[in-house]
Amino acid sequence: MAQMEYDTLSITDAVIARLTDCNDPRFKQVMTSLIRHLHDFARDVDLKGDEWFKAIEFLTACGKACDDKRQEFILLSDTLGVSMLVVALEHARALKGRTGATPPTDATVQGPFYWVGAPDTPLGGDIGEGVSGEPALYNGRVTDLEGKPLAGALLDVWSGDGEGVYDMQRADSGMKARGRIRTDHEGRYWFWSIRPTYYPVPDDGPVGDMLRKMGRHPNRPGHIHMKVSAPGHKEVTTHLFVKGSPYLDSDAVFGVRESLIVEFEKHEPGTAMDGRKMNKPYHVANFDFRLIPTS
Amino acid sequence: MAQMEYDTLSITDAVIARLTDCNDPRFKQVMTSLIRHLHDFARDVDLKGDEWFKAIEFLTACGKACDDKRQEFILLSDTLGVSMLVVALEHARALKGRTGATPPTDATVQGPFYWVGAPDTPLGGDIGEGVSGEPALYNGRVTDLEGKPLAGALLDVWSGDGEGVYDMQRADSGMKARGRIRTDHEGRYWFWSIRPTYYPVPDDGPVGDMLRKMGRHPNRPGHIHMKVSAPGHKEVTTHLFVKGSPYLDSDAVFGVRESLIVEFEKHEPGTAMDGRKMNKPYHVANFDFRLIPTS
Ligand SMILES: [Fe+2]
Ligand SMILES: [Fe+2]
Repeated sequence: MAQMEYDTLSITDAVIARLTDCNDPRFKQVMTSLIRHLHDFARDVDLKGDEWFKAIEFLTACGKACDDKRQEFILLSDTLGVSMLVVALEHARALKGRTGATPPTDATVQGPFYWVGAPDTPLGGDIGEGVSGEPALYNGRVTDLEGKPLAGALLDVWSGDGEGVYDMQRADSGMKARGRIRTDHEGRYWFWSIRPTYYPVPDDGPVGDMLRKMGRHPNRPGHIHMKVSAPGHKEVTTHLFVKGSPYLDSDAVFGVRESLIVEFEKHEPGTAMDGRKMNKPYHVANFDFRLIPTS
Repeated sequence: MAQMEYDTLSITDAVIARLTDCNDPRFKQVMTSLIRHLHDFARDVDLKGDEWFKAIEFLTACGKACDDKRQEFILLSDTLGVSMLVVALEHARALKGRTGATPPTDATVQGPFYWVGAPDTPLGGDIGEGVSGEPALYNGRVTDLEGKPLAGALLDVWSGDGEGVYDMQRADSGMKARGRIRTDHEGRYWFWSIRPTYYPVPDDGPVGDMLRKMGRHPNRPGHIHMKVSAPGHKEVTTHLFVKGSPYLDSDAVFGVRESLIVEFEKHEPGTAMDGRKMNKPYHVANFDFRLIPTS
């Protein structure tokens, strides 16, 4: 008869051995590594039964906190740096074998507030209408790695308001501060919104409790999110960070890339570069996106 | 200004560095190890963004599957061998420094079907009334490690029925096949129930999907659960396994200990050893529990 019982070391190989009949090689590889690291973790800290039970309760509470507008497990992954690590691994993979070319736009975390189906917004449109905060004009180009403009590239944009709150976090709200903008024939884009401010990730749930117990603040520096894509090119999920924002050096989700920090130039009231008449001060942020070709 | 961005290696130390202000040394130690192993896992398998998203969806589905009678995260921990590893670590810790004494009763997983508040059952009582399955008389002693009988020790017992289904898994049911029995002045216990049979762990949820994808069966060999405790002694959470049951060598949760496998002796109809008249065949299972003193 086969072996029935295992000690604190041999149990790991016993669990992995149960993958013998797994017919998905990648799943087998991932689960093998996961089991080994999970068991190593438990052994390394000599995990206690009551500690493990607290972990079970924590995971259960995270699941219960999830609904169609809140994703506590993404927040957990973000705050433990796993999301940004996965982004960095993806980025390194995409760059593999590409030597010499101009670097593409860095990627960063998607975060829990993406909402499919933002309204189509014409060039020069204002997605910040009805949203608190100081107005800002975003403009620049989308190009390939050689700097060739990409016409009809899509920017799917979202951010919190001037108080650092996303539409999804307000009980009543429909979509706010979201839009889909397409570049013109010269690869240019421009649209208005507000200048985003720093904000705490949702910290009224189990992940917030974890952060407090870790002695960490929950804040992210001011940023605007976007997914930028174009035919024949890889979509990049990224942010623009507001230069000078608090928490740039201690982002709660480790998402900052120096290449994504943008000066929000302050302008006095007057006519903006796109011809819009502004009767209060506004900011201008300029950024060019460079996309990786798919082949 | 402090460092803002990290590569696929340096991000791990950056996340761990955020524990600087954690004032719970044990929590800090556990989280440090968890972060390191989680990140190592992601790097080892070069984790893809879509794979990580599937993992997030899986964890969310596990959370949604949990209710007051179902605990999908315990099931996940059980089927990945983590629960049994934690049990084995606890057991090793409890034995540390105790040389020479008779070994205590082995512990095994609690599983997801414990229910606080089972009815008090007198010695000789039948907790299997109204439950399908072949009758079985359980008997033996509870002693300390020197074999001294422990009077008034408590056995908090639960099992599935003769079809391998727990009361909690039936829509209508109150408590069935559960009872709390106390030993007499000579440390003896005896009670009736049914002989449990092998059963699949609940496999209609996300953990069941995982097991199928892993190429694994979901079955556990026949067993009856109990928590055994006595004043001045450590409680042990354990099983008795039915000798000869299928799946003893491939328990889906890795819980089998050879020391816990018990012969269920078959008896023809007649008067059982406790005087009960049986008009159908029955089984007798004998097992002595040995508890570790608390000091
Ligand atoms: Fe954000
Ligand atoms: Fe069970």
